[in-house]
Amino acid sequence: MKSSQLFTRTRKQAPADETAKNAQLLIRAGFVHKEMAGVYTFLPLGKRVLENVIQIIREEMNAIGGNEISLTALQQKDVWEASGRWSDDVMDVWFRTTLANGTELGLAPTHEEPLTALMKNFIDSYKDLPSYPYQFQIKFRNELRSKSGLMRGREFTMKDLYSFSKDRAEHEAFYEKCAAAYKVIFDRLGIGDITYRTFASGGSFSKFSDEFQTVSPVGEDTIFIHEGKGIALNQEVYTDEVMKDLGIDKNDLVEKTAVEVGNIFTLGTKFSDALDLNYAAEDGTKQPVFMGSYGIGPSRLVGLLAEHFADDRGLVWPENIAPFKVYLAPLGDSVEVTTEAEKLYEQLTKKGIEVLYDDRNVRPGEKFADADLMGIPYRIVISEKTLASSVYEYKGRTDTDAQMLSHTELIAKFV
Amino acid sequence: MKSSQLFTRTRKQAPADETAKNAQLLIRAGFVHKEMAGVYTFLPLGKRVLENVIQIIREEMNAIGGNEISLTALQQKDVWEASGRWSDDVMDVWFRTTLANGTELGLAPTHEEPLTALMKNFIDSYKDLPSYPYQFQIKFRNELRSKSGLMRGREFTMKDLYSFSKDRAEHEAFYEKCAAAYKVIFDRLGIGDITYRTFASGGSFSKFSDEFQTVSPVGEDTIFIHEGKGIALNQEVYTDEVMKDLGIDKNDLVEKTAVEVGNIFTLGTKFSDALDLNYAAEDGTKQPVFMGSYGIGPSRLVGLLAEHFADDRGLVWPENIAPFKVYLAPLGDSVEVTTEAEKLYEQLTKKGIEVLYDDRNVRPGEKFADADLMGIPYRIVISEKTLASSVYEYKGRTDTDAQMLSHTELIAKFV
Repeated sequence: MKSSQLFTRTRKQAPADETAKNAQLLIRAGFVHKEMAGVYTFLPLGKRVLENVIQIIREEMNAIGGNEISLTALQQKDVWEASGRWSDDVMDVWFRTTLANGTELGLAPTHEEPLTALMKNFIDSYKDLPSYPYQFQIKFRNELRSKSGLMRGREFTMKDLYSFSKDRAEHEAFYEKCAAAYKVIFDRLGIGDITYRTFASGGSFSKFSDEFQTVSPVGEDTIFIHEGKGIALNQEVYTDEVMKDLGIDKNDLVEKTAVEVGNIFTLGTKFSDALDLNYAAEDGTKQPVFMGSYGIGPSRLVGLLAEHFADDRGLVWPENIAPFKVYLAPLGDSVEVTTEAEKLYEQLTKKGIEVLYDDRNVRPGEKFADADLMGIPYRIVISEKTLASSVYEYKGRTDTDAQMLSHTELIAKFV
Repeated sequence: MKSSQLFTRTRKQAPADETAKNAQLLIRAGFVHKEMAGVYTFLPLGKRVLENVIQIIREEMNAIGGNEISLTALQQKDVWEASGRWSDDVMDVWFRTTLANGTELGLAPTHEEPLTALMKNFIDSYKDLPSYPYQFQIKFRNELRSKSGLMRGREFTMKDLYSFSKDRAEHEAFYEKCAAAYKVIFDRLGIGDITYRTFASGGSFSKFSDEFQTVSPVGEDTIFIHEGKGIALNQEVYTDEVMKDLGIDKNDLVEKTAVEVGNIFTLGTKFSDALDLNYAAEDGTKQPVFMGSYGIGPSRLVGLLAEHFADDRGLVWPENIAPFKVYLAPLGDSVEVTTEAEKLYEQLTKKGIEVLYDDRNVRPGEKFADADLMGIPYRIVISEKTLASSVYEYKGRTDTDAQMLSHTELIAKFV
């Protein structure tokens, strides 16, 4: 894309009311716009990053048998009354609205109930199990406070997969498969080394659930890490009893603040009992479907990645989630420089390399500062000086020095 | 994908309360699920069709300089009060909700106001113009009645592009460019021959707007077509005065019912005046930005396409929007048949051809009926009989007879 086509631009200062570093950086670089606290519009660069994160998650969910769907935001209350979660005392983050005819509706904070009801159309017998529908969908949560930028949204994108299994054994096999897929996802996102599978409370569903917590100074959670075992405990289950259960010595644990980037729950038969989702087993008996749920927040991840992959000049995206791979900056407006830049832009684009071509007539310093703030992994400079030596100036976002490369050497960097 | 991985299944009957043919077919084939009137979940097959439609629109919007973004559903009322559209008397389809602190919010029925306010961060000078942000986003409209299946939704996906131009001349050039892009989109969707650019009322914005109306017996609109000129008039502007303006003879017009699949509006400075979106012109004067809006409803299109591309056996998707290109049906469960089916499935998949491989142990008639109901363009059958002759049975969805093809002939059909 050419910069002249991109309608956003960078800014020196974030809005004064934005206190979270992730949102400050993303707003300054033109990736997102704050609509209100916890509600962010994704601008072209941010949208590209979000889609890259989503695509990584999608590939791994498909690889374990996931079936992508798209549930609705508007929710009828009967299914939530059946499970007992319509009440504000039980679920305190409801946004509600009303149909023109006066019927009260909810805006989905999560989707267990409507999906369980839906699956009654597709599950009768053991032959229909297991199944693994998932979606990327907007969730609405009426949080009283929302000051962590993209990390605690009132409206945000969520990947939620739900498993429908015959029994606990079939459930547990998939549960571990999904936990392994989550590990692959966080590795691919570049945060595998600071993300821990974390024992947490199972809430009303089961004894434990598993969270995936990424160590971050701005995290809202406190976790206790056991480096040797590569796991952690959420503060809420940091008790002598649990540590004894898990065979963990308190002295081996290190306390850190962390951000919850994913969670997986054993739901058991709570929702299938409430909504009457049963199947005929091989022996002819009627059995409740055994369920699990598996969440990851892609928009929260964009916030976390922005917070984590940054330096004093701005964002530093890993290649596979960057909005563009290359920032192409011609300097000056001579015909020769422009012609060469256009030619290279076309060559790289044809090879499938995503290039942001800064065709604006601005000072070199402004182009370099923008490339750094936006966090584009590689910068290529073309100037009268480089043309005179038949080279291109090439620099990685975190490199100290630029290299002068021939055309062949330059292209070789990207194939 | 293997059928055993797909959690949906076909059904003989649509729900009794579903009267629209498009929704009946899509529900029977397992493409969508009705959450409530006008609110549909997209199941795996429907989601694939929707994404194919979206991708076609996306490519054409990018080709005319569109910048994809993602605005939010939750809306603060100040921007809508500024334009005078917060009132139910002006906009009668609002869904409203309330923040935990008591602040009233709206659920976006459209996005002119928040986007105009957002663009104030990015437009100062004539150098920042024109720009063309667009999105695929959920819209919420609190329709009193919603009985047309996917064709009139209370929650639906909309592509909305907004143009920000220096003046009417720059606006009109883009307006025509977008109208041309819409023609390409409807051609690519296979409905170009029955879709007419239609003069319609400009509402409070301008004298005329342009609708794109697709002739359909279930349309909610009445249009008058001039085949010679390839245009139409919406009933609301079917007056002697307009016909005289356009140099059209009433006797050349043919009345038809039609579905509005797209619309484009000249908004002028209505919103930029209301929300103070101005720019410094080359001569230094302050000027209001000249705006336009350009909508297409992808989920409505899925409904229309289902209604249009169907016969007595079910859906008949054009290749480029079908959920899968090939329905691979092995008959019987002999090792030889299964081995050959698995092999062909892998060969085609590796070539990037999307195959739905019916690995279920059900009767041939059930497989054939499902392939037809789902509307998959090509069906390949492998049986002990075809194996004995070293051929594959190949049949297009609308072909009368199947052909027996060698492996080479079969592969040649898909490259």
